[in-house]
Amino acid sequence: MSETQMPTTRTRVVREADRAVYDRDAVYCILDEGFLCHTGFVVDGQPFVIPTSYGRKDASLYIHGSAASRMLRQMKDGVPVCITVTLLDGLVLARSVFNHSMNYRSVVILGKATLVDDPEEKLAALRILSEHILPGRWDDSRQPNERELKATSVLRVPIEEFSAKVRVGPPIDDEEDYSFPNWAGVLPLEMKAGAPINDARLDPGREVPPYLTSYSRRP
Amino acid sequence: MSETQMPTTRTRVVREADRAVYDRDAVYCILDEGFLCHTGFVVDGQPFVIPTSYGRKDASLYIHGSAASRMLRQMKDGVPVCITVTLLDGLVLARSVFNHSMNYRSVVILGKATLVDDPEEKLAALRILSEHILPGRWDDSRQPNERELKATSVLRVPIEEFSAKVRVGPPIDDEEDYSFPNWAGVLPLEMKAGAPINDARLDPGREVPPYLTSYSRRP
Repeated sequence: MSETQMPTTRTRVVREADRAVYDRDAVYCILDEGFLCHTGFVVDGQPFVIPTSYGRKDASLYIHGSAASRMLRQMKDGVPVCITVTLLDGLVLARSVFNHSMNYRSVVILGKATLVDDPEEKLAALRILSEHILPGRWDDSRQPNERELKATSVLRVPIEEFSAKVRVGPPIDDEEDYSFPNWAGVLPLEMKAGAPINDARLDPGREVPPYLTSYSRRP
Repeated sequence: MSETQMPTTRTRVVREADRAVYDRDAVYCILDEGFLCHTGFVVDGQPFVIPTSYGRKDASLYIHGSAASRMLRQMKDGVPVCITVTLLDGLVLARSVFNHSMNYRSVVILGKATLVDDPEEKLAALRILSEHILPGRWDDSRQPNERELKATSVLRVPIEEFSAKVRVGPPIDDEEDYSFPNWAGVLPLEMKAGAPINDARLDPGREVPPYLTSYSRRP
């Protein structure tokens, strides 16, 4: 599917179309800030939505998991999937109940997953997944062996049919409500890292690596 | 469906079954800490996964949205849905790449949504939704009028067929990896509120209400 066909009838944002984003670079920014997606697939007419981590390189989104998992067993057969990434940025408190909202950035990708079979590509994809979540960690860890690679399935979903929806900024109230005597504004929300917790069996004196002390998803 | 039938074959956790939780009270705790869910539904064989807020009362989960939205138009016809709530608690950094993981608590609910038609029940459900996200805010805001209530659809999903999956604690490494010379442990993650941002048109001197200054999802 070529870029110029975006959005498709399936990815066109129906409600609040002014919040729609179809620009690939803007979508990549959202995908790169997040690392948790919700993946939807269908079994016997029943949708399932499963949280999982992901990584991105160019127009490919990678997810992985145990070769034995329900999700990966289903998805590798090339069934239609939906991958959704949501970043929550704040509660938007308006004067009226009705105009309350949230600030968020979300991406919806529709497509079919394919199993990454080639051993080299699979290892590269696992590295992309790891570096997406925590840059620097892969080289700092014990590398995967044959058995572990076999127990892991990696799926690739092309980022071809997608849309994003973004809300930013203050509440938008009906004009006659601006005199309503309540507080109005935005309560910012952000996923934040706490202090790293040493494993109980860690060598005493081993220091927390720099990639952990300054961990933040915001660019 | 009675409690004793949990899990069904559809909600039984396949992978890492030791992380499975089928206890209703534990599931309610997770649902009450979160307020963002990812809702899956199927259109012409294609799954869609859409983020939305929710509220809970007893064994009912409520979501709402514009009567014109794709999701609500589809879901009110009693199609099968999946509602997933995920709380991310941390990155789990093991010695080996393979044993890296995340600490999380997630709930998956399968069921059919029904439109909340009765005006009194609808208003009550909207209040539940609002109070779920920000207790105290409803009474502090301009109440919904007829037109606004008409423009909003509320759906109820029964919390009957569900499962949860929970991972807590430190990395679990292969015994021979404990001597590997990297840092290992947990990087805690938590959704945190920043300082409230006054709307530009707010009356000068209006104070931030107490329900905002101490906002936290953790009980």
